[in-house]
Amino acid sequence: MSAATATSLRIDRSRLLARIDELAQIGALPVDGGEGGSSRLALTDADGAGRDLVTSWMADLGLRVDIDGVGNVVGTWPADRFDPPVMTGSHIDTVATGGRYDGNLGVLAGLEVVETVIEASTTGDLVLDRPLAVGFFTNEEGSRFAPDMLGSLVYVGGLPLEEALDTVAIDGAVLGDELARIGYVGGMPCPARPPAAFVELHIEQGPVLESEGVTIGAVTGVQGISWQELTISGQSNHAGTTPIELRHDAAYVAAAVVVAVRRLADETPGLVGTVGRIELHPDLINVVAARATITVDLRHTHEPTLARAESRLAAEVAELADAEGVDVAWRRLARFDPVDFDPMVVDLVEEVATAHRRTVRRMPSGAGHDAQMLARVCPAGMIFTPSVDGISHNPTERTEPDDIEAGANVLLDVILRLATLPDATLRGARPDPGAEPRKLEQFDEIIEGGGS
Amino acid sequence: MSAATATSLRIDRSRLLARIDELAQIGALPVDGGEGGSSRLALTDADGAGRDLVTSWMADLGLRVDIDGVGNVVGTWPADRFDPPVMTGSHIDTVATGGRYDGNLGVLAGLEVVETVIEASTTGDLVLDRPLAVGFFTNEEGSRFAPDMLGSLVYVGGLPLEEALDTVAIDGAVLGDELARIGYVGGMPCPARPPAAFVELHIEQGPVLESEGVTIGAVTGVQGISWQELTISGQSNHAGTTPIELRHDAAYVAAAVVVAVRRLADETPGLVGTVGRIELHPDLINVVAARATITVDLRHTHEPTLARAESRLAAEVAELADAEGVDVAWRRLARFDPVDFDPMVVDLVEEVATAHRRTVRRMPSGAGHDAQMLARVCPAGMIFTPSVDGISHNPTERTEPDDIEAGANVLLDVILRLATLPDATLRGARPDPGAEPRKLEQFDEIIEGGGS
Repeated sequence: MSAATATSLRIDRSRLLARIDELAQIGALPVDGGEGGSSRLALTDADGAGRDLVTSWMADLGLRVDIDGVGNVVGTWPADRFDPPVMTGSHIDTVATGGRYDGNLGVLAGLEVVETVIEASTTGDLVLDRPLAVGFFTNEEGSRFAPDMLGSLVYVGGLPLEEALDTVAIDGAVLGDELARIGYVGGMPCPARPPAAFVELHIEQGPVLESEGVTIGAVTGVQGISWQELTISGQSNHAGTTPIELRHDAAYVAAAVVVAVRRLADETPGLVGTVGRIELHPDLINVVAARATITVDLRHTHEPTLARAESRLAAEVAELADAEGVDVAWRRLARFDPVDFDPMVVDLVEEVATAHRRTVRRMPSGAGHDAQMLARVCPAGMIFTPSVDGISHNPTERTEPDDIEAGANVLLDVILRLATLPDATLRGARPDPGAEPRKLEQFDEIIEGGGS
Repeated sequence: MSAATATSLRIDRSRLLARIDELAQIGALPVDGGEGGSSRLALTDADGAGRDLVTSWMADLGLRVDIDGVGNVVGTWPADRFDPPVMTGSHIDTVATGGRYDGNLGVLAGLEVVETVIEASTTGDLVLDRPLAVGFFTNEEGSRFAPDMLGSLVYVGGLPLEEALDTVAIDGAVLGDELARIGYVGGMPCPARPPAAFVELHIEQGPVLESEGVTIGAVTGVQGISWQELTISGQSNHAGTTPIELRHDAAYVAAAVVVAVRRLADETPGLVGTVGRIELHPDLINVVAARATITVDLRHTHEPTLARAESRLAAEVAELADAEGVDVAWRRLARFDPVDFDPMVVDLVEEVATAHRRTVRRMPSGAGHDAQMLARVCPAGMIFTPSVDGISHNPTERTEPDDIEAGANVLLDVILRLATLPDATLRGARPDPGAEPRKLEQFDEIIEGGGS
């Protein structure tokens, strides 16, 4: 494909930035001297107002707006085409204290791409083989309802609609009720008919692109995620009167596990391991802890490596527990297999970026995204743009306007190319097009806070 | 001294147990199938009622009851003797969920010893060179007012009375006001005139005696205590998107410090080290911690060893912080030098126990006690009795009746012996009788919860 992957079309940077700013005003969280973020938890009034705004933009452009039973919204152009579109999009719900780019960028850049194509086609010099679609999926963040990526999961048939509608929020509300309340129960069937292809533009939410001075990330896949909770039960004792060798110190074992997780990550290329929560009981300066609860977050792009890391950790914990004379209870909180994006799409992103004279690198996504659900049913991929200081899920989240423009233009040409590829190329790209979509892995509970 | 240190006098076990039980009913905390503990925080109504009961027992025995300006209560026999007594006692305040033995045993066993001596002297065959005194000191636990051991500290001149009276409780009450409210502002001057000697019977509050099957502990001193708080500041990041080598993980450094404290304790004979509190921020499963606050409790009987442990830990923490790129702020919460009890008193406890055919071992106290304050002004020592399962500061705290009887009888003969030793022996026993009592070490704050 090489240079042929760059068209002369370009998106309208100021129009895109203006829409990002206008959407950010709904549930606005101002930042001193900065742009500010937003708080639009899924299916709240603020989310409803954000949906109304984006849906009105879709309608203004003449797209056909379809809403499914779980509130996923898809705008299609031309409005009278019903064959599988090349689709883009993301989500517009946010974490409680979110930024203005996470999710929103992918939806609004998609809208900008469609508007650019519409403008070019009215002048007559652009004809596409496939329709285009831009969508936003319900409850991607998972901050209010578990699991995260719920809307796209239902969209691809990974979670039955009825089950999704019964989901209870951290505030006690029921998803189906909230959806009806804000007026987003639609008639489009779900699971939906798979699109021809799916590409999502998203901020990296990490520091890699910025630290390497690279503008475009060609996302190769999404890491597998293992979330486990360990409850360590020892014995509470006086810190002054209990000799070390007679202790059953839950805090010490918890700390040794944290150190073991780090060592495991150091010794396993590509593995990230994090202990982000620690709770001690009774949590007093002069009392040996009777109980410690910690969470372990392990991620890797390669399933056997992730599984091996889990086993190694389990063995080390058992040894530590045995030596200190404490009990450890494990609880699995979540487990998602790694997802590989379609190599054809990954190549295409890389080639388009290169043709645009942008620096580009292949990289896995550390966070979960809607595109990983779509990858179950069609050729899918993602484009990353840099995050300033790697910060996300925070009102100070920022991506430079130049990078936004570069990312949106790469998205434009990737979509144009996908819209003209022969059917056989797209079908051939999917490793196993007839395979059953995988179901959501069982989990006991998703920790609140969300943000996949 | 050897066999000569055992008299034929014996305390009345059932009378002592009855008094322990009666006092435990004030602020009683019942335990299913057990004896139950008490809740009598210093200078509350419950503490006042406990004081009234014990003071009435002193008066019933014909003791002269003196109360000083900070509410320390001392009963002296014979009531008309004003020369320095051989003194025993402890405290009757408890932690919020205390047992029935901590402190109470020392006061009530002291009362039992005095009653036993009074009975023996009325039959005419016992004459002592010195008067006897039994006291209870204000706010030993430190659960309501900081610092702990406040009453005995004022008693020996380590803290000015006025400063003590101004102390504000965790519930906002002022110590002087509370003292007046429950009627325990007395006229006996403080600092008090030093007694001739001081011996305190106390439960071990640890597992050593029980685990070795030993009945009597001859306490050699009290460990020095170093309490420090570390606040580790790193950077909050997404657990999925931030490579390990770009992290500034406060939780990881906190955990590595906990492990370093344990290693330090393992490598330093006699050192106990405990991290009992850990607090992370934001404390979410999928977010690298931006901040961790932990406390470090180090104790040793030898001051230079304790100071060396502090320096070694500081150096290790600096290295860990440097490697991870985090900042560490240290705050000293408390620092008490180790206290050595008078070798003459320690020997005497050991000899009396042996003469009583009791198993005995020398041991330091891991917890702080009133006797360590009295050690500043007179020959002082302590006798430990075993704690079942090492449990203390808990309503299930228990010491077997046989052990209580054994300990009280050792106390009786130690006191009788001290009451007949020549003045020169007692004076010679104090390493530096003319030395200024040391002042309380400076500290920023004592963590609430108390229980030295």
